Amino acid sequence: MRTMDTLKKLGLSLDLALEAHELLRGTTRQEVPGVKEDKENYDFANVTTVTILNEQGAQIMGKPQGTYITIEAPRIRFESKEIMDDLSELLGKKIESLIRIDPQDTILVIGLGNWNATPDALGPNVIDATMATRHLYTYAPEIIGEGLRPVCALAPGVLGITGIETAEIIKGVVDRVKPSLIIAVDALAAANISRISTTIQIADTGINPGSGLGNKRIGINQESMGVPVIAVGVPTVVHASIIVNEALAKLNELWSSNIMTATYAQKITPDLSHELSSTMFQPFEGNLVVTPKEIDDLILNVGKTIAAGISQAVHPGINRENYHRYLQ
Amino acid sequence: MRTMDTLKKLGLSLDLALEAHELLRGTTRQEVPGVKEDKENYDFANVTTVTILNEQGAQIMGKPQGTYITIEAPRIRFESKEIMDDLSELLGKKIESLIRIDPQDTILVIGLGNWNATPDALGPNVIDATMATRHLYTYAPEIIGEGLRPVCALAPGVLGITGIETAEIIKGVVDRVKPSLIIAVDALAAANISRISTTIQIADTGINPGSGLGNKRIGINQESMGVPVIAVGVPTVVHASIIVNEALAKLNELWSSNIMTATYAQKITPDLSHELSSTMFQPFEGNLVVTPKEIDDLILNVGKTIAAGISQAVHPGINRENYHRYLQ
Amino acid sequence: MRTMDTLKKLGLSLDLALEAHELLRGTTRQEVPGVKEDKENYDFANVTTVTILNEQGAQIMGKPQGTYITIEAPRIRFESKEIMDDLSELLGKKIESLIRIDPQDTILVIGLGNWNATPDALGPNVIDATMATRHLYTYAPEIIGEGLRPVCALAPGVLGITGIETAEIIKGVVDRVKPSLIIAVDALAAANISRISTTIQIADTGINPGSGLGNKRIGINQESMGVPVIAVGVPTVVHASIIVNEALAKLNELWSSNIMTATYAQKITPDLSHELSSTMFQPFEGNLVVTPKEIDDLILNVGKTIAAGISQAVHPGINRENYHRYLQ
Amino acid sequence: MRTMDTLKKLGLSLDLALEAHELLRGTTRQEVPGVKEDKENYDFANVTTVTILNEQGAQIMGKPQGTYITIEAPRIRFESKEIMDDLSELLGKKIESLIRIDPQDTILVIGLGNWNATPDALGPNVIDATMATRHLYTYAPEIIGEGLRPVCALAPGVLGITGIETAEIIKGVVDRVKPSLIIAVDALAAANISRISTTIQIADTGINPGSGLGNKRIGINQESMGVPVIAVGVPTVVHASIIVNEALAKLNELWSSNIMTATYAQKITPDLSHELSSTMFQPFEGNLVVTPKEIDDLILNVGKTIAAGISQAVHPGINRENYHRYLQ
Repeated sequence: MRTMDTLKKLGLSLDLALEAHELLRGTTRQEVPGVKEDKENYDFANVTTVTILNEQGAQIMGKPQGTYITIEAPRIRFESKEIMDDLSELLGKKIESLIRIDPQDTILVIGLGNWNATPDALGPNVIDATMATRHLYTYAPEIIGEGLRPVCALAPGVLGITGIETAEIIKGVVDRVKPSLIIAVDALAAANISRISTTIQIADTGINPGSGLGNKRIGINQESMGVPVIAVGVPTVVHASIIVNEALAKLNELWSSNIMTATYAQKITPDLSHELSSTMFQPFEGNLVVTPKEIDDLILNVGKTIAAGISQAVHPGINRENYHRYLQ
Repeated sequence: MRTMDTLKKLGLSLDLALEAHELLRGTTRQEVPGVKEDKENYDFANVTTVTILNEQGAQIMGKPQGTYITIEAPRIRFESKEIMDDLSELLGKKIESLIRIDPQDTILVIGLGNWNATPDALGPNVIDATMATRHLYTYAPEIIGEGLRPVCALAPGVLGITGIETAEIIKGVVDRVKPSLIIAVDALAAANISRISTTIQIADTGINPGSGLGNKRIGINQESMGVPVIAVGVPTVVHASIIVNEALAKLNELWSSNIMTATYAQKITPDLSHELSSTMFQPFEGNLVVTPKEIDDLILNVGKTIAAGISQAVHPGINRENYHRYLQ
Repeated sequence: MRTMDTLKKLGLSLDLALEAHELLRGTTRQEVPGVKEDKENYDFANVTTVTILNEQGAQIMGKPQGTYITIEAPRIRFESKEIMDDLSELLGKKIESLIRIDPQDTILVIGLGNWNATPDALGPNVIDATMATRHLYTYAPEIIGEGLRPVCALAPGVLGITGIETAEIIKGVVDRVKPSLIIAVDALAAANISRISTTIQIADTGINPGSGLGNKRIGINQESMGVPVIAVGVPTVVHASIIVNEALAKLNELWSSNIMTATYAQKITPDLSHELSSTMFQPFEGNLVVTPKEIDDLILNVGKTIAAGISQAVHPGINRENYHRYLQ
Repeated sequence: MRTMDTLKKLGLSLDLALEAHELLRGTTRQEVPGVKEDKENYDFANVTTVTILNEQGAQIMGKPQGTYITIEAPRIRFESKEIMDDLSELLGKKIESLIRIDPQDTILVIGLGNWNATPDALGPNVIDATMATRHLYTYAPEIIGEGLRPVCALAPGVLGITGIETAEIIKGVVDRVKPSLIIAVDALAAANISRISTTIQIADTGINPGSGLGNKRIGINQESMGVPVIAVGVPTVVHASIIVNEALAKLNELWSSNIMTATYAQKITPDLSHELSSTMFQPFEGNLVVTPKEIDDLILNVGKTIAAGISQAVHPGINRENYHRYLQ
């Protein structure tokens, strides 16, 4: 019952390629045509790289062709400070693996989302912790150390605050600044609450309509921006209707496994899930999210980790040892 | 199935007396012994006063004897600024109806909750917007206008930040300041998402263990404080497990009403709800809440309304006309 | 001694045309060629309009040709809420008097400054309180009332955070959004501490290099943006070196007026003032500002007043009566 | 001219014992009776310990008998992250040297000041970064590691917000919690702008009336609290009138050194300084402070350093190596 179809009925899409792939492979772990999956394991994290190889894979996955690297670090919630250095180093290496520009080319880091709404504030938080260097090349070249590149950073806000499509603001700035690459950070919605603040997705496909917590209407990708876009996203919420769907899915599973209740299970359909969600959540029209009470802390920590990872990825001379000194 | 028993199984209690009463009366609208309910209707709000008259009522309701006034103003979410003045005036009158001290006696306003976690920040927000006057009687008596009383205000923080039981901090301050009355403001959890930021409960019973979003362990009430405590609370979240329970309850209802599915309905028990919730929410141990994306805005608006209502209730000379001037 | 020359020695320019004009007119109140001054008086405020009529006036004043309207409302600091409605109405009318575009043309409001540094956060605060309407014409035309126009709003940040010249970001957005007018809000430095948060300057010349607390390097004006720019500024600080200069100027005055000390007075020169300031403030290199302890409150109040004034100026159908309802 | 008398005329006292001592010793470096001074030098900081030995010293210094340790680390402003670990370790050792209670005794950390006014927010910032452990002994004893002690933390707010003397709030909490020691953190005013955010004073005399940026009216010391109080303070501002006084003092110096101008110098008296300051700053009545533009950043960094130092001082098992892990 936890199929792509159910999600579509609920008006939801899966932000994480890993979740979409898992859903498609199902309990039988069947291959999805046009999609490849690789795994690496670390002490503190598992990395899964889902590659959508062709148009067929893109269609089935509902996502553009490209590479989607997912880092799962469930312990970050409980031992956050301890593994932050490990995690940001790994994240840095993974982002770096997707960067194909020269070391002196300019990178524009974009923090998507709304700084006033905690679960959507991840992007702006990362921008706060990102050190811009681009202006120093003009105004203070003498303080630029070896191994840095020009980096600029922008938190463009959200449509409801600016009245301007976020993609329009970014495109305007791109046309002036002419970066060679964009790294866009965004809060995502997951299908599973255990992913909140513990999973990081890095994709070389940019951000595409319908993805991200704020549901961008125009993509922020190579097509719209004219330069490559690497998207870095972390789930901070699960849509409330997913919770209802998940509960019914678990009920379905439970009943299916017993011959006495198997016929009941058949009654629990995507339509039923959709009907219940609609009745329950109507006054908020799908704007209800499930999030941990301590989401402020979680976003603060994961935001710092991502800022550290991005710094190590973009500046050839920055690593886990000298990052703290650099961040003066 | 939506019974008190189910909630107890889920480890939850109902913060709103109105919801507890509705649940107990059930679909048959039966009388609850020892409990009285009155209703008033306004253009912009409905007011329900639930009075727990005796020990029997207290036992059944799971709440102490006393008066629980609930203002429901669903339109506040969509027309917030327009009805804020009406609502704060009504709130002021209702709080005033529970104040039984002399006009010159000191009142201590307490803002419970955690200022770092948006859905729990209602109390601290109200303190920010409350004008303390008590010190002026000593330091600037010449600027105290007619019709004011000594008011002091405290946001004591939460156990996880201070390491001290919130009730202990308040009791310490009460012993020094010796107010004649405490008004304690807190964020609540509701059983229904439509109540988030649209319902205000005023109770002359104070705040009792297990109530409020942060689950105070020691009561803040006449017994522990030695002076009367009026509690003002607004639901800002619904526990995620309530959502699961609600979904199953709706399924039960749906199936019960049809002879073909009535037997299935019987399978949907409180135990089943508890089992599903536990599996789904385990990593966060019940700390998952459902809240609207725009909770920051909602809390800002309802916080201002409550601060205005409290000011009108405590100062005999403050009303909706002169409140804005007073709040210099 | 308080001459333009002294200020130039201190590396400072006067953000307020009114102050520059007063300085040039000196104690003898001489006319400044190419500059006209008009005054209006209100109960709660005085309005001075300085018009720089030609190139000669521009040279002497060190500011571009154009109209500089200054509202002085010293009582705002003590009775802020009471006169906020009067002041925002007046501000609205004065801004409106400089708007020469059609009622349906788009306006872009820009909030300059750094949201992390309280005295420089005025612009971003105004953006927070400005309701953007432009996107509603596309996404929710049915909720746009009569008498509104498309308004969009942006807080672009500062060079040190973004690594991009602020003017570049704005120009990029202007090229995409194509507004017919820009209104740019900024925190200013005054020459006199009594102006902090009590004076508002509205200028149809935009923002020019060297003006504003953050010292923009590229102008935000018709020349750079291609559309008219109205600048709205409020002093939030006085540079520390101005304080030293002012103290010496007062000493000079005092001594000059007495024949016994008149010769001493001659020793107090701009060079001396510069020398003292340099020694005293060296470690902070001119980044020291004088500001009232309660600057946070002052900026909050004046920011709301400006947002209300701008709303009344840009939307033909918004006035002091319906503004609060509109700001839903 | 920079004498204690001048400061008294300006209504100011010196928060830093080091500054008071320097002022008293004057250019001739004379001994102050009843006062002892020791110095230690480190790579990254100088430490001066001023001990007021008896009542005579206390009278002359205008401060209670006790030990005042001052750490001067001017480089923290430019290389903040790099030397933060060194500095917090040193700070921890110096605080520890003043702690004379058993390792299992409870310590209450107090963060004085106003979280809404940036230069006064140091205390509350430190509380935010201090991990309270006291409640864990009751609620989660299994997670308390070796080498910890019970610590609780409170940011009581300021008189203008609460309407309650800060000392009253703290005394109330002390009476309930019964700590064996209080550590009180506060923002100070310095006499010299180069001390802003670069100097830390640790005193075993607590906080006494007139000290601290917010000018507490009742002391927070052993006498009022019944337990020892260690005060940790950092200058975040200089009063504007000090700047005027300093300018005149420098002028005095300059002129005194030249026989041609020596007679002028005599005219520059404390009374003159007072007169100029009064005229210039009248509308703000002494509430004007001089502070660097980037004060937000400075307070954030020094706040973290102090929180780290306090943690290392109070918990026997916490040191610079394991502090980051502990701060989960």
